[in-house]
Parts: sequence; structure tokens; C-alpha cells
Amino acid sequence: MELLKERIRKDGIVKPGNVLKVDSFLNHQIDVKLLNEIGKEFKRIFSDVEVTKILTVEASGIAIAAIVAQYFDVPVVFAKKTQTINIDGSVFSTKIESFTHKRVYDVMVSKKYLSPADKILVVDDFLANGCAANGLIDLIKESGATLQGIGIIIEKGFQEGGRHLRNRGVRVESLAIIDSMNDETGEIVFR
Amino acid sequence: MELLKERIRKDGIVKPGNVLKVDSFLNHQIDVKLLNEIGKEFKRIFSDVEVTKILTVEASGIAIAAIVAQYFDVPVVFAKKTQTINIDGSVFSTKIESFTHKRVYDVMVSKKYLSPADKILVVDDFLANGCAANGLIDLIKESGATLQGIGIIIEKGFQEGGRHLRNRGVRVESLAIIDSMNDETGEIVFR
Repeated sequence: MELLKERIRKDGIVKPGNVLKVDSFLNHQIDVKLLNEIGKEFKRIFSDVEVTKILTVEASGIAIAAIVAQYFDVPVVFAKKTQTINIDGSVFSTKIESFTHKRVYDVMVSKKYLSPADKILVVDDFLANGCAANGLIDLIKESGATLQGIGIIIEKGFQEGGRHLRNRGVRVESLAIIDSMNDETGEIVFR
Repeated sequence: MELLKERIRKDGIVKPGNVLKVDSFLNHQIDVKLLNEIGKEFKRIFSDVEVTKILTVEASGIAIAAIVAQYFDVPVVFAKKTQTINIDGSVFSTKIESFTHKRVYDVMVSKKYLSPADKILVVDDFLANGCAANGLIDLIKESGATLQGIGIIIEKGFQEGGRHLRNRGVRVESLAIIDSMNDETGEIVFR
């Protein structure tokens, strides 16, 4: 998606440790107009599959999922990272290791909101080692719902997550795939 | 907002300890169509003030802020609950006590995304004791930005947050104010 790549080139900041900061438009401050274009693009790409729910994981996936869901005309469900007193005991749960936060989270979805009748599109901001995506797939499997595909805004193509998912037969569609980045020059090479 | 009150009556679940579960449509599974109507209503209510940014706090405020922002045509900024390696050291920060989670969070916004030129509309799902709203007001004050108002979806009118904020001269607009709820009968009385 050219508009997205231009924005990453313009406002993305490459940091040591293969960190790409896009918090000026994607995951701290959010450019909602850009998300609208992303929503239209995901709808175009996944127009051939039935989708009954968009699934993501808090926190940075939520804004994306909410805007994207408008183009599919379906509800959003977001997996929660901590047990809260507002959730009944009856949940699907798994563990996700965060590349960004260097820790492991328990994530869960209430059993009320994923069922065997659901056809799920997963969306998220980043795909790197695939931990978040694999965790969400675990929750979907546990529920008996069908995974229709995974829509990613930025895939770090030099990490293994995307390749492993595609090798398992999962449909992964990434709007921008980065093959390499250089934190000294700031250069970002897209596939 | 009648549509919202009807939905709360239909799908809200009153639990002991003055907990109102609305996770089937507002903060776990999200009815994006309802959020669109909420966005239109906030735009109608706050049409008399200039807004340059919508501010909320993760996680449950994010979807609301993203959808509402479409009607104001401005970016969203969400305050983050934990320090991450993706955030520079330069942040506005404060502490927020969560009624739901019974704990205190450090929350922060990068100094890049709030400035004295900003006119801020705060939005959130709930207003109860006002801790989240007061924390966000702290961040706005620290930044020198102007608070134009607070848009709340559900205010627990039997708790003190709304009254204290209004007494301090803060404009608080709540789409549904609950005067009482009964976890034995499930009854919800709106103001």
C-alpha cells in the first residue's frame, strides 16, 4: 500500500534493536484518516471471504480493528491482557510474548464472543516474530471459530513470524513488508 | 441518548459492587455501529468548541476515541499505561487508580503529541469516581494544552466523579447517567 509506505518513510523512526517507531500516526497518536484508507484496503484484499468478526489484541490493535470493522460491517472483539473483575470466569486464554515489551502476557477472550459460527479476520499493527498472531490463532482454535485471514499493517519481513504462518497455510496479508532497516542511516527497505 | 440507554437496558448486566458489564457491545466486543451513533452525538454536543485532538486512555477508550475522531476530523492520542521501549523518555505522566482493576497505573503521553496549541476533547467509556478523567486532565495541564470538554458514554451518577469535575468548572457531557442500579433485580435507573 503505497500511501502507507510513504508515511512510514516520512514519519517512521528506526531505532536500535530492529525497533520501528510509528507512534506519531499508528499506535500512540493515531491518524484516523490513514486508518480509514487501511480499512478500505483490507476490505478490498479480503473481499472474497466471509467475515463475521474482527479480532485483535489490546492495546495498539484496537483503533485499527474498530476503523477496519466499519468496512466489513461487523463487530470487533479484542483480546484482553489481564484478568479484570468485569470479565466472567468463562474465557478462552493463552499466553503472548511481546517483542516490544519484552514480557509474557496472559490474554483472553470471553467465551461469549467467539463461537464455532464465527469467521474471523485478525488485524494488528505489527507482525514480527508472530507471537501475537499465534496467540490469537490459539484463541480462535479453542473457540471452534474459523480463521479467514490475518491483516497486518507492517510486517517485519526479516523476522520469522510471517513465513512460519504462511508455511502453516495461514493467509497473511501485510500492507507493508520491511526487508531491512538501518538505525544509523534511518533507511527502510520495503519488499 | 435514547439508543444508548435502550442498549444498556437490553444488554448491560448489573453485578454486585456497582459494576455494570457492557462488554457485549462497548469494551470487549464492540458494536461499531453504536459507536458511530455515539460519535455523531458527541460531535453534535461539542459542535460549539474547537477540537484539535481527541485524548483517551488505553484500553477501553481507544475504540471509542478512534470512531469519535472521524466526526471531528482530528487525530487521536491515547495515554499509555506502561513504559515501553517504543516511547522516548520525554513524556507527560501521572497516576490513575482503576475502579475496575483495583490498582494504580502509571499513564503517560509522549510530549510530542500534546502541546499548548492543542484543544483537547477527552472521551472515555465510563465516569465513576473520576480517576481516569482527572489523570488525563493532569496530563493536559502539564502540556499546556486546553481542555475543551469531556465526553463520557456512561456516567455512574451515584459516584462522585462527575459532580467534582463539574464543580471545578470542567464541561462533562455524559450520554447516559445512571442514578442507581440493583444487582438483584437488574434494574438500572437513568437520570
